[in-house]
Amino acid sequence: MIYAGVDVGGMSIKIGLVNSDGKILKTKAFATEQEKGYKSMFARTADYIKQLLEESGFSLIDLAGIGIGIPGTVDSKKGMIISAVNIGCKNVALAEEMSQYFNVPIAVGNDANMAALGEQRFGAGKGHENVVMITLGTGIGGGIIIDGKLYEGNGGAGGEVGHQIIEIDGEQCNCGRRGCWERYASATGLINQTKYAMAENANSLMHKIANENGGVDGRTAFLAMDAGDYSGKAVVDRYLHYLAEGLLNLGYVLHPEMFIIGGGISHEGKNVMEPLQQKLNEDFERSGMLPYIQVVQASLGNSAGIIGAAALVM
Amino acid sequence: MIYAGVDVGGMSIKIGLVNSDGKILKTKAFATEQEKGYKSMFARTADYIKQLLEESGFSLIDLAGIGIGIPGTVDSKKGMIISAVNIGCKNVALAEEMSQYFNVPIAVGNDANMAALGEQRFGAGKGHENVVMITLGTGIGGGIIIDGKLYEGNGGAGGEVGHQIIEIDGEQCNCGRRGCWERYASATGLINQTKYAMAENANSLMHKIANENGGVDGRTAFLAMDAGDYSGKAVVDRYLHYLAEGLLNLGYVLHPEMFIIGGGISHEGKNVMEPLQQKLNEDFERSGMLPYIQVVQASLGNSAGIIGAAALVM
Repeated sequence: MIYAGVDVGGMSIKIGLVNSDGKILKTKAFATEQEKGYKSMFARTADYIKQLLEESGFSLIDLAGIGIGIPGTVDSKKGMIISAVNIGCKNVALAEEMSQYFNVPIAVGNDANMAALGEQRFGAGKGHENVVMITLGTGIGGGIIIDGKLYEGNGGAGGEVGHQIIEIDGEQCNCGRRGCWERYASATGLINQTKYAMAENANSLMHKIANENGGVDGRTAFLAMDAGDYSGKAVVDRYLHYLAEGLLNLGYVLHPEMFIIGGGISHEGKNVMEPLQQKLNEDFERSGMLPYIQVVQASLGNSAGIIGAAALVM
Repeated sequence: MIYAGVDVGGMSIKIGLVNSDGKILKTKAFATEQEKGYKSMFARTADYIKQLLEESGFSLIDLAGIGIGIPGTVDSKKGMIISAVNIGCKNVALAEEMSQYFNVPIAVGNDANMAALGEQRFGAGKGHENVVMITLGTGIGGGIIIDGKLYEGNGGAGGEVGHQIIEIDGEQCNCGRRGCWERYASATGLINQTKYAMAENANSLMHKIANENGGVDGRTAFLAMDAGDYSGKAVVDRYLHYLAEGLLNLGYVLHPEMFIIGGGISHEGKNVMEPLQQKLNEDFERSGMLPYIQVVQASLGNSAGIIGAAALVM
């Protein structure tokens, strides 16, 4: 049996054939070209799935299902895109649309949720039924798995962990709230904090590192810290405090077995995972809210979306 | 069929016989006397359940199950009290202990969770499968119902919504964290804010109201507001802001169908429910995180614990 996992993005659409062990057999990517409209977008997706099957020596009869991850709000029970501005879709009955082309089960979900499902089934969370995945990128994405199933909230509007506030009346967020976690603990937040510290400390090694790397990014403060720079370490410490406090909030409410950390910042590896784990352990030990929650780095990288989309339909 | 619901508190233990419609037929209360040890505590509970059955014209054969709510951390899968300091219990296999006396299913849960389950099955949340209950008392208790079932988190350590922080590095909480929601939005938080405003405003009506009522309590600012006092209204407005921001956090993460508000402050009724509902609607409309989440007042009062405990074993 073979499944098609589709990861829809604003720039490109990625398709993968995935077996029931969560292994990607072959992939294909093509431009989203949302200006051509959603009917074109998903007709091309259907064509490429068929092409991919053929190129891999499969036929339609081998295809057991199609899962599609969408960057936006999705009602997965109905197979509907509610709103996905990056691909220009609003109230699109996507499962129905795709069923013109295929006579197999078709599942639709939010892309951050797909990544979480992929990691839980076949990646860093394998063997765990209660997992929360956090993606640290431009914002903070989240995916909640409860008893081995995606938890999406009413109408698919849950799992927006980046928009829990951690500082009441704090920094203005794009969502309209003030003090959202993602203002402080996303890669964007870290970059802002790095720039601020650099403006305060003309002698910090962060200036040299940023110059060498063509600008400030999420690695600047970490690289400076590793090279012994005091203000780099101060930025990282403060950033990890923001990150830990938001994770602890989710821990007090949901207490999953595991937090899986993905996105750009997660590539800092043990520089991030170890202090986070320590902060969480200390806190839960003090409050008695045991057992500990394991903090692990995501392991599927960019493939998580394709694998998770396929997992949704398995 | 009849069920026994037991609500264990630090001072007293309340027992009720509950039918399958969630109606309490008869109740009994007795002193906890935790100093006599847990074996005595639960032997007396068993005796009183038998007495209550007899007094109500039932026999043991009519009893279909016993549910017990405990003020502390409970592993309900194992029927174990992990830790309940108010009744001096640590690692007590309560379901096993009670099975000496009864040959019926015995379920054990946390008391805030029992109240949530009672309200969801038979109270304000009837007919809704995804509900979060918030109890505004000395602290803020929480109970999460997902797909009609209690969500307790790993080891029963979830649902501690009062200890999500809303102000990083804010007020010191008993739990050890700083800036916990319950520091600001519990009855205790409101009383502190009322006292602070009274110290700032010698002319506020709140002074007169507090004098007449034998001190400042959770009603002082509301009563002053209702009588047209400006600083009373300012206290209430600020308090509702704290309350709404924490609820919104839970909304972004869990997006249940409904928030049920219980505890002392909930008796303010529409003075609390209406502005909360409006704040939540405005926020979710702006961010597109629809549908709305209904905000309702708890309806079972102090019986919720007994009814919920019985519901746990139904």
